[in-house]
Amino acid sequence: MKDIKIIKADKLKAKPADIKNVRFGSVFTDHMLVMDYRDGKWGEIRIEPYAPIDLDPANATLHYGQAIFDGLKAYKTVDGYAAVFRPYDHLKRFNNSAKILDIPEFDVDYVAEGLFKLIDIEKEWIPSAPGSSLYIRPFAFAMDNQLGVTVGKEYKMMIILSPVSAYYSNGFAPVKIMVEDKYVRAVIGGLGEAKTPANYAASLHAGLIAHDKGYDQVLWLDGVHRQYIEEVGSMNILFKIKGEIVTPALCGSILSGITRKTVLEVAKSWGVPVSERRISIDEVCAAYDNGDLEEVFGSGTAAVISPVGELLYKDKKMVVNGGKIGEFSRKMFDFINGLHTGEVKDDFGYLKKVVKF
Amino acid sequence: MKDIKIIKADKLKAKPADIKNVRFGSVFTDHMLVMDYRDGKWGEIRIEPYAPIDLDPANATLHYGQAIFDGLKAYKTVDGYAAVFRPYDHLKRFNNSAKILDIPEFDVDYVAEGLFKLIDIEKEWIPSAPGSSLYIRPFAFAMDNQLGVTVGKEYKMMIILSPVSAYYSNGFAPVKIMVEDKYVRAVIGGLGEAKTPANYAASLHAGLIAHDKGYDQVLWLDGVHRQYIEEVGSMNILFKIKGEIVTPALCGSILSGITRKTVLEVAKSWGVPVSERRISIDEVCAAYDNGDLEEVFGSGTAAVISPVGELLYKDKKMVVNGGKIGEFSRKMFDFINGLHTGEVKDDFGYLKKVVKF
Repeated sequence: MKDIKIIKADKLKAKPADIKNVRFGSVFTDHMLVMDYRDGKWGEIRIEPYAPIDLDPANATLHYGQAIFDGLKAYKTVDGYAAVFRPYDHLKRFNNSAKILDIPEFDVDYVAEGLFKLIDIEKEWIPSAPGSSLYIRPFAFAMDNQLGVTVGKEYKMMIILSPVSAYYSNGFAPVKIMVEDKYVRAVIGGLGEAKTPANYAASLHAGLIAHDKGYDQVLWLDGVHRQYIEEVGSMNILFKIKGEIVTPALCGSILSGITRKTVLEVAKSWGVPVSERRISIDEVCAAYDNGDLEEVFGSGTAAVISPVGELLYKDKKMVVNGGKIGEFSRKMFDFINGLHTGEVKDDFGYLKKVVKF
Repeated sequence: MKDIKIIKADKLKAKPADIKNVRFGSVFTDHMLVMDYRDGKWGEIRIEPYAPIDLDPANATLHYGQAIFDGLKAYKTVDGYAAVFRPYDHLKRFNNSAKILDIPEFDVDYVAEGLFKLIDIEKEWIPSAPGSSLYIRPFAFAMDNQLGVTVGKEYKMMIILSPVSAYYSNGFAPVKIMVEDKYVRAVIGGLGEAKTPANYAASLHAGLIAHDKGYDQVLWLDGVHRQYIEEVGSMNILFKIKGEIVTPALCGSILSGITRKTVLEVAKSWGVPVSERRISIDEVCAAYDNGDLEEVFGSGTAAVISPVGELLYKDKKMVVNGGKIGEFSRKMFDFINGLHTGEVKDDFGYLKKVVKF
């Protein structure tokens, strides 16, 4: 494996006094990971002081969006380690996003080693308040400075770290979701499976409208039939219907969430039936009308589990489980949070302990 | 109107010795236009030396792609002016892209004035070889440094200039186009109408495959039925069927091309019937089989008119007009090129003469 070059910052920043007051992804640590792709290969990983990038105005990413990212988290465990949750799964997904965007794939083990080194250097930045973590943002983008619409020849990969508080600053609470029937996030044949700026750019306007109407996020429907459930804003979506956990199958237009995967694996280990399949909004409405829709919740790295207390589809307002957090959602939330910190025994091998404090 | 601040470069770059050898969009002039949006308003235009941008690694555009651009051209006219083709139409479209991406709209007249000032300063960069021009690239993007998925509060708008040669370095010649039936550029409800990185990111992979198969560009079909014609790579597409010019109507998923508009307006002035409507690939195939498909051509700022000599749809190879440039395509190409340089009298008011040499 190649070396990792480390250049330490001369001066360290002050860490946030109270993580609760920090807006998500607005404070960054002292160092970042950088790796450049040039002359047909990824070079050596460098860990350097966090600093701006010099970007030419003709940089292809600014114009044509050949870029990808991922998001994962590091935690302080109860036995005194800095640990990362499912790092290899995230880096493999990051590589899959690279493939979809025609960005050259990288050596997952080498980047994982670089990430662990960075976490080691920045471990004092991992907050210790309940539910808080160090958010890890790997990203990569074209560095060619030319306006022809074409796949790049040069790329930059970076990892930056941001201490974040628990997603629910006022406690774990249900969200209100608006089912979007006008705008479309992604369609089969498009980039929906990749974590790439395009899908987020496509989501901004509908998100604004939902907020204006008093909803937290939107639930996307498929772009062809405007009928099949896709995902919620920046999370996957799961339904508990007559005791079964149902979630849209990975069809090419939705993101393969790592928390989604975790929920399905944990549910199976509990003996709870799970089903990954096509599910239509009409089926959800019918299940609601029949009293079969027991719980609805989102899954994602930011919130872990996000119970849905209300779903609005056209004029139909569905108050799920009396607007309260469901039993399964709460149990899953507590369990996965326990896995993060080592309070729950990790029989799944999800947690990668990086270094002891 | 606000002032325009000008800071001249100390040292000027050497201009390309032979514009023919310059790759599209790879050489830039000495100055650029910059305007920042902050505290709820667009600030003063600055014309500054061309220089890299300092971008924070957490810059929202790198992660979520809230960005837009446009593309237009300046020419040397036969009567000795530096002139821009349809600048107000382009800047209005740029503003429409801004609206779609929730980027604050700007004052078109003020930006036009800034652009004309920039063209005045850089007029010596306009190449004079036949078909060559100074390509103008306005673009704007979010400047917020935070990882929450949300519409930005700060933006940067820039205009950079690049001298480009005639698109057809070896003479005006037909291209080969592959009809794409797997990948989708954009769908109704998405961003297809905007000039935004997302649509170009979605086009890269299909473009690569087409190139590998010996085709120049792809022809996109709609994402819902995979049947209706949308646009070609980075151009609009037009068909001449039984004497009529037929082109897909602006339905929300395709770009409202300014050259498309020019072609339709000029054709109408010639008394040629034009029709903007839904047209399916099956209809194109049937017209081909019946001998009714007389010409196919793309329209766009880069190539102006791009005659299509071959269309491949699944296994069906259609050689259009014997693989030769059609009479209408050639006449339109010559006419619009003549409008650019003032050789053809501009009864349409397309050409904005900026400054006399």
